[in-house]
Amino acid sequence: VSGTAGQDTGLLAPVWAGTGAAALVSDEAWLQAMLDVEVALARAQARLGVIPRAAVGPIEAAARAGRFDLAGIAMAAREAANPVVALVQALTAAVAATDPGAAEYVHRGGTSQDILDSAAMVLSAQVLARIEADLRRVATGLATLAGEHRSTPMAGRTLTQHAVPITFGLKAAGWLNLVLDALRRVRQVAAELPAQLGGAAGTLAAYYEYAKLAGPGLAGNGIELIALFAEELGLAEPALPWHALRTPFADLGSVLTFVAGALGKFAADVQVMTRTEIAELAESGAEAHGTSSAMPQKRNPVLATLVVSAARQVPAYALVLAQGMTGEDERSAGAWHAEWQPLRECLRLVGGAAESAALLAGGLTVFPGRMRANLGLTGGTINAERVNVALAPLLGKAAAKKLLARISAESASGSGTFHELLTAAPELAGRLSGEPSLPDLLDPGRYLGAATELVDRVLWRYRAELTGAGVGADLRSGGPAVFSDGEPDHR
Amino acid sequence: VSGTAGQDTGLLAPVWAGTGAAALVSDEAWLQAMLDVEVALARAQARLGVIPRAAVGPIEAAARAGRFDLAGIAMAAREAANPVVALVQALTAAVAATDPGAAEYVHRGGTSQDILDSAAMVLSAQVLARIEADLRRVATGLATLAGEHRSTPMAGRTLTQHAVPITFGLKAAGWLNLVLDALRRVRQVAAELPAQLGGAAGTLAAYYEYAKLAGPGLAGNGIELIALFAEELGLAEPALPWHALRTPFADLGSVLTFVAGALGKFAADVQVMTRTEIAELAESGAEAHGTSSAMPQKRNPVLATLVVSAARQVPAYALVLAQGMTGEDERSAGAWHAEWQPLRECLRLVGGAAESAALLAGGLTVFPGRMRANLGLTGGTINAERVNVALAPLLGKAAAKKLLARISAESASGSGTFHELLTAAPELAGRLSGEPSLPDLLDPGRYLGAATELVDRVLWRYRAELTGAGVGADLRSGGPAVFSDGEPDHR
Amino acid sequence: VSGTAGQDTGLLAPVWAGTGAAALVSDEAWLQAMLDVEVALARAQARLGVIPRAAVGPIEAAARAGRFDLAGIAMAAREAANPVVALVQALTAAVAATDPGAAEYVHRGGTSQDILDSAAMVLSAQVLARIEADLRRVATGLATLAGEHRSTPMAGRTLTQHAVPITFGLKAAGWLNLVLDALRRVRQVAAELPAQLGGAAGTLAAYYEYAKLAGPGLAGNGIELIALFAEELGLAEPALPWHALRTPFADLGSVLTFVAGALGKFAADVQVMTRTEIAELAESGAEAHGTSSAMPQKRNPVLATLVVSAARQVPAYALVLAQGMTGEDERSAGAWHAEWQPLRECLRLVGGAAESAALLAGGLTVFPGRMRANLGLTGGTINAERVNVALAPLLGKAAAKKLLARISAESASGSGTFHELLTAAPELAGRLSGEPSLPDLLDPGRYLGAATELVDRVLWRYRAELTGAGVGADLRSGGPAVFSDGEPDHR
Amino acid sequence: VSGTAGQDTGLLAPVWAGTGAAALVSDEAWLQAMLDVEVALARAQARLGVIPRAAVGPIEAAARAGRFDLAGIAMAAREAANPVVALVQALTAAVAATDPGAAEYVHRGGTSQDILDSAAMVLSAQVLARIEADLRRVATGLATLAGEHRSTPMAGRTLTQHAVPITFGLKAAGWLNLVLDALRRVRQVAAELPAQLGGAAGTLAAYYEYAKLAGPGLAGNGIELIALFAEELGLAEPALPWHALRTPFADLGSVLTFVAGALGKFAADVQVMTRTEIAELAESGAEAHGTSSAMPQKRNPVLATLVVSAARQVPAYALVLAQGMTGEDERSAGAWHAEWQPLRECLRLVGGAAESAALLAGGLTVFPGRMRANLGLTGGTINAERVNVALAPLLGKAAAKKLLARISAESASGSGTFHELLTAAPELAGRLSGEPSLPDLLDPGRYLGAATELVDRVLWRYRAELTGAGVGADLRSGGPAVFSDGEPDHR
Repeated sequence: VSGTAGQDTGLLAPVWAGTGAAALVSDEAWLQAMLDVEVALARAQARLGVIPRAAVGPIEAAARAGRFDLAGIAMAAREAANPVVALVQALTAAVAATDPGAAEYVHRGGTSQDILDSAAMVLSAQVLARIEADLRRVATGLATLAGEHRSTPMAGRTLTQHAVPITFGLKAAGWLNLVLDALRRVRQVAAELPAQLGGAAGTLAAYYEYAKLAGPGLAGNGIELIALFAEELGLAEPALPWHALRTPFADLGSVLTFVAGALGKFAADVQVMTRTEIAELAESGAEAHGTSSAMPQKRNPVLATLVVSAARQVPAYALVLAQGMTGEDERSAGAWHAEWQPLRECLRLVGGAAESAALLAGGLTVFPGRMRANLGLTGGTINAERVNVALAPLLGKAAAKKLLARISAESASGSGTFHELLTAAPELAGRLSGEPSLPDLLDPGRYLGAATELVDRVLWRYRAELTGAGVGADLRSGGPAVFSDGEPDHR
Repeated sequence: VSGTAGQDTGLLAPVWAGTGAAALVSDEAWLQAMLDVEVALARAQARLGVIPRAAVGPIEAAARAGRFDLAGIAMAAREAANPVVALVQALTAAVAATDPGAAEYVHRGGTSQDILDSAAMVLSAQVLARIEADLRRVATGLATLAGEHRSTPMAGRTLTQHAVPITFGLKAAGWLNLVLDALRRVRQVAAELPAQLGGAAGTLAAYYEYAKLAGPGLAGNGIELIALFAEELGLAEPALPWHALRTPFADLGSVLTFVAGALGKFAADVQVMTRTEIAELAESGAEAHGTSSAMPQKRNPVLATLVVSAARQVPAYALVLAQGMTGEDERSAGAWHAEWQPLRECLRLVGGAAESAALLAGGLTVFPGRMRANLGLTGGTINAERVNVALAPLLGKAAAKKLLARISAESASGSGTFHELLTAAPELAGRLSGEPSLPDLLDPGRYLGAATELVDRVLWRYRAELTGAGVGADLRSGGPAVFSDGEPDHR
Repeated sequence: VSGTAGQDTGLLAPVWAGTGAAALVSDEAWLQAMLDVEVALARAQARLGVIPRAAVGPIEAAARAGRFDLAGIAMAAREAANPVVALVQALTAAVAATDPGAAEYVHRGGTSQDILDSAAMVLSAQVLARIEADLRRVATGLATLAGEHRSTPMAGRTLTQHAVPITFGLKAAGWLNLVLDALRRVRQVAAELPAQLGGAAGTLAAYYEYAKLAGPGLAGNGIELIALFAEELGLAEPALPWHALRTPFADLGSVLTFVAGALGKFAADVQVMTRTEIAELAESGAEAHGTSSAMPQKRNPVLATLVVSAARQVPAYALVLAQGMTGEDERSAGAWHAEWQPLRECLRLVGGAAESAALLAGGLTVFPGRMRANLGLTGGTINAERVNVALAPLLGKAAAKKLLARISAESASGSGTFHELLTAAPELAGRLSGEPSLPDLLDPGRYLGAATELVDRVLWRYRAELTGAGVGADLRSGGPAVFSDGEPDHR
Repeated sequence: VSGTAGQDTGLLAPVWAGTGAAALVSDEAWLQAMLDVEVALARAQARLGVIPRAAVGPIEAAARAGRFDLAGIAMAAREAANPVVALVQALTAAVAATDPGAAEYVHRGGTSQDILDSAAMVLSAQVLARIEADLRRVATGLATLAGEHRSTPMAGRTLTQHAVPITFGLKAAGWLNLVLDALRRVRQVAAELPAQLGGAAGTLAAYYEYAKLAGPGLAGNGIELIALFAEELGLAEPALPWHALRTPFADLGSVLTFVAGALGKFAADVQVMTRTEIAELAESGAEAHGTSSAMPQKRNPVLATLVVSAARQVPAYALVLAQGMTGEDERSAGAWHAEWQPLRECLRLVGGAAESAALLAGGLTVFPGRMRANLGLTGGTINAERVNVALAPLLGKAAAKKLLARISAESASGSGTFHELLTAAPELAGRLSGEPSLPDLLDPGRYLGAATELVDRVLWRYRAELTGAGVGADLRSGGPAVFSDGEPDHR
């Protein structure tokens, strides 16, 4: 039927299909949030004495999304360019059906944008809370990996090529650090989401007029209403109405983009490391996980793929929110209207990505043996930088680098292992006999620099930020006891 | 229930809520399109003798979207990162329920992407056809306006300021020309939408193996199947499978962005011209059209606003499609998955915008009197450039411009009308007495340049492209008889 | 010559041509910044005793951008995909020319990204400081306007149509509030810009090896170097190297987008208000300001146009930075390389926009008379909402609105003024004779709601945030004395 | 000096530093192009008799970019928001210095946008010609690879995992097909680039007035001028001035994005295939190619990285061009001004990417042995789909898939090779003894489907489109003789 025209339950968005975040921003949820905002307005006005307390109950009773014709309201929105006009008519009628007097107090002094923007903030707060919880799960999973693999050597890769060794713990700590950055931003924006209340053009004039109508001296100039209304909704009180001052939407877009990017980095690395030829990680999962419609053997990294699919979309949707800042007048003719759907998409994409990333972080299988094997693929060449340092005092830095570049190239083309060619090089005759020995010099496990200490710094941050223990400027003054395992293996 | 989690019926998208385009790309429509693609595959294979003809009927009979658990398939898609794996299982089971033998021939040799991409092309073709029809309506509305107001003078505006006079016909002709550009691009891309058929990694290998199984020499190497499959779907045959060669999605994004921009330009100008202070145009409409939840007097330009809301979103979503081109491997782990929802958004946003723009173009009220009044606001200054030309031979171009800049500034600050100050300027004493006279020089209706001829050029293009009459390189060789009204008023 | 191929001095970017921000991020400035970073590395290593103190002087002496072949280094960058490799060679040669021994200590242990990223942070800090100063000038200009026009009535406009009255002070206060939001974000990100130091793959291994070479126990594991290096550069110390953890670039993009949007909103409104038909504002300026190559009378709002031109570009460039977060491995093969130019563009576009906006805010001419005239254009209809409130107790809210919609429409079509038609309406016979009187009800100056109090809230924030006086949760507890001018005119 | 503030020679853009495309769009080139456009206008007017033929020579002589103060003009552009006003003044003065009379005929009737837009089209045409030439080189390189490796088996990869075998020729043919798509689009847009001529608001009014001044009946209504002017510039004649109808800029953005995406796909795959663990391809190059500032052994895929760096930027810049379509009025206050720099960036980024991709395609080293080795990594599992087809008639398609999934998983966890486990599976006892044999079934070289025929289709297209031989609907009717090497190896 026409009522389901355009119905979208997530068939094309497996990253959020069926997730909690998606349910929180469905059309029905949005309708309920707008109704909740109308109720909050009535309650706040009743607290000020501007409308009768007796009017609140009937409005509350009528404000149940399930009773309204959602598709009809959606279609009627084409007449006013927003759904609130039709919703107010429907709500008024619903209240009037039980209490005609109370119906006069529906949406009293309100403008469409007060309702829709406030509802958007209420829903955003709910989704952000869920995202925060999932990011904490991601962080915990990554902290565990970082701690367990603090000293597990693997190849560091730059521009797709083996560079120098790192540890898998450092890799996981990097992901974790990004997630902690994301968590900080989520918390900050969540704490600042403001209610919207301004009336037709942001002066609160009609609210004030209705207050005067209710009785002399009752309500000052209308500003009092903002705080009570915000309190009813659990939102922050803004300095002034922000119908055309779009800080909250822009901030949401910016923070959700950041979260998508942070999780996207994690997922992109997982995809590289699960490649058939690399195989250092695998997604765990149930039997059906990662299957193909064609190939029986397939175990695709689907959680990482879902996260990547979100990370590729969110920045574009958030761009619309950023550009919404430049809308003209006291309410823009289009910029505002272009924000709603992109905000919803950002919320459910990031919500779904966070839920997926939590599963991913909690279920990764790590193959240290494969990491070690990959480190050995180039026969010691991965430590060429270290040999360069050792040779610098003997040959000069530049000459040493030139020699090693030649030997590396010969080794790559099959003339011998890096070790063999180093030993055979006439320029080095007798020069590599000191300490450390050549086998030591070429051991990836002995060229890890500060990897383990860097892991500790991030784990320390993790514990401080997620458990409330203080962390300050003295990032270097203490390492974690829990994850420390005696002398690092690279000394 | 969980089945409606994330349900999206357009509450936040009045530009497409309830429109035909939106219905064409609903989840249910998408599910049906994927089923139709499975049927087309079976039909094509039966035509080649690769599967028994008797298997086709049961597959056709089972392939009814209404019978499937849409929300369940959407959620199951999280396991495989696409909905096809679960859909194939469900379809196979549905066929098996009536004909277990036929069930063996479902999705035979197919890969998920063959199904999803082909379905996307089928739906895109349907929406493009609707967009084309709506763009024709827009074009016809604009051609009518351009013809009727070919010689109606109004202020040309640049950088928000009155520049020189134009005609409203020229303005409408400009919008029309953009719409004709858009129509050309829509037709071109619609004619090229290809079917997708390649099997697991684009070699058609499994299709070929199944063909060999069916009988020696039956099906060559599998390539034959592409053409028949494309024919079944009414799509073009591609040179090769395009799982990771995303020309079709990129082209769709590009063309839909163009259409959105073309309609957005029209809408942006309507918004300027309907401003309370300018008031040269009004959207027509029914009683409920353009109302506010707060202000009784409001008649907002809501159709233009809906179009603008789409034009602000589409380029961002299409960006995701453009960036999808760079996906790696034979099937990308994320780039492909990130395309589906943005494509749907682009299709329904542009579909809704085209439908809205058709209403807008067909219902505009034009106020030539107000245009004339606005032209007069600056007391003739809008013709300053023309006076400059007339004075150039007398004073030199630069000196004339400097003098007129001074007089314009004085007039703007209230020292007198442009006419008065020109007459009083000592530098011009006796110099403006020739032909044309000063009143003629300052008459906006006599400084329209080639406006009407330019209108005719576009109307000629309109008739040629929308009626099939040829138009070629000789754009200047003939003007339209119908719209020509004798001597242009500016000669 | 080829050396200037691609030279770009701002011919196509009047928003930043010749501005201080542009000079700060020129190629030459970038080259110098990279040299400064090499010097800082040498200094920090000398402080740790890792390199001889005597080596620092020659490195400092050689590190003058003017001595290097900028174009040659730029072109050589094609070989390594970054300019640092060639720069290090050139710097080493320059040092060697005066002190061959010191040349060994150039870039010791460093990787290209340590240098380029740190240079980017140094330059970003410099541009942000300039942006902050310009935003303060914008804020001061807007605060002055807000205070002076706190009670100056003008038409509030929504969806391009007159809505209800506001004051110009409230409009300016809204712009100011956005600018204060922007300032807060600029300060926050500027305080957090981190140095980059990690060596080849972020483990600091080569730094550590060189330290061991210099003497046992000299330098721990290399981590000590980060803090000293950051201190030398005046940057923050990061928790760990961020070669592939792109929080700083993403944050810069996000904040610069916000600033562009905040200034873009201001400029967009100025453009509306300077329209020939509206003419409530004018850009001030010298004789040559806003001229046209064709039209003598033109005084275009060019400063606003420059700002808008930046606001349209910055979000797109910043998108590239946001997407850079998802780069793979320890250094991405492309994502990192795609960040440099967009960051520069964002910095100079926003720097130029802030400088332009400061001129704009400081030089606006306000025409209160024209604001009053525009308010009167609809003959009182702009107060229709207020009449609606007054009639609600008499007719019911909905019936009143319906009646007023009819009367507004009749008035708009020329049947009489809103006042006349109200007086003549039989439904209202005798009902508008009380207090307030109809002339009072229709007076825009008496329907300003909380406009002036809202102005005061923002001015209070302005003083608190720009002078250091505390501002907290009790936003409502005190209004400003300075700007308050007795009883607001609307009571 | 201030004159070089903001100088940008490509230090941050190795993808275009020093390339021909970059030189074509430098500030100096842009200045010269604007001067060339002024000359073309004078020539066209002289041909019509509107200005004296004698005036043309002095204008031509003066129009040398090297004589003008580029930085001064760039800075003066801040006054008018575009550089043309200052340029016209400077050009007029330069002409007047030798021929005061001729100076009167500079920019006669012109508006800034006529000059800047036409110059942009002239430069775009030049860069597109270079891009086309480089794309042809890319295509030739890829066609050679596709032909040579038509039958070279390698692993097809989907979602990062081995899927089924393909040939490297098919991979190269896919890249080639995208490049041919790109070439077609480049040619189409290049052929349609229009001159811009409309005067102050697109009516040609001043051109017409000046023509009337020159003599009665001389120049019709000004439209004649468009064609002559376009002819002088080698550009197409537009239907009407397009100051606010931005099809050409939008099309350029769209096509350049497509080219970037097509090359980006090629580069992204090269990056995967050059990974240390995969090593199926290597970029060739001189000694200095791909070096690192730290690691002696590094041979980074820098050409691919340069191309990717462009592909990540271009879509974002082109977005600004697409959004420019919605500019308001006869000339937008900001949308137009925001187009120039992004267009330049797109042109030089894509120009540089095409030049880099030509080097990349011409210099790739292919390692078929490594491809074969990688195919064998999973011990035959890569042919699991083929085994599935073979087992389908015996076990049913679904049961076979389930069995093979189990065996694949066991093999992946080390219980034996896929071959061994298949042989040992009790369900298959005696069932795999027929034809083809199990070793044949598991041979990747015998499961290539239509790979070689698909290669031939693309090579046929390549020859047809780049040599002019016709190609039409009968894509299947003929294969290439040159590349065909008898019976494909997989039959």
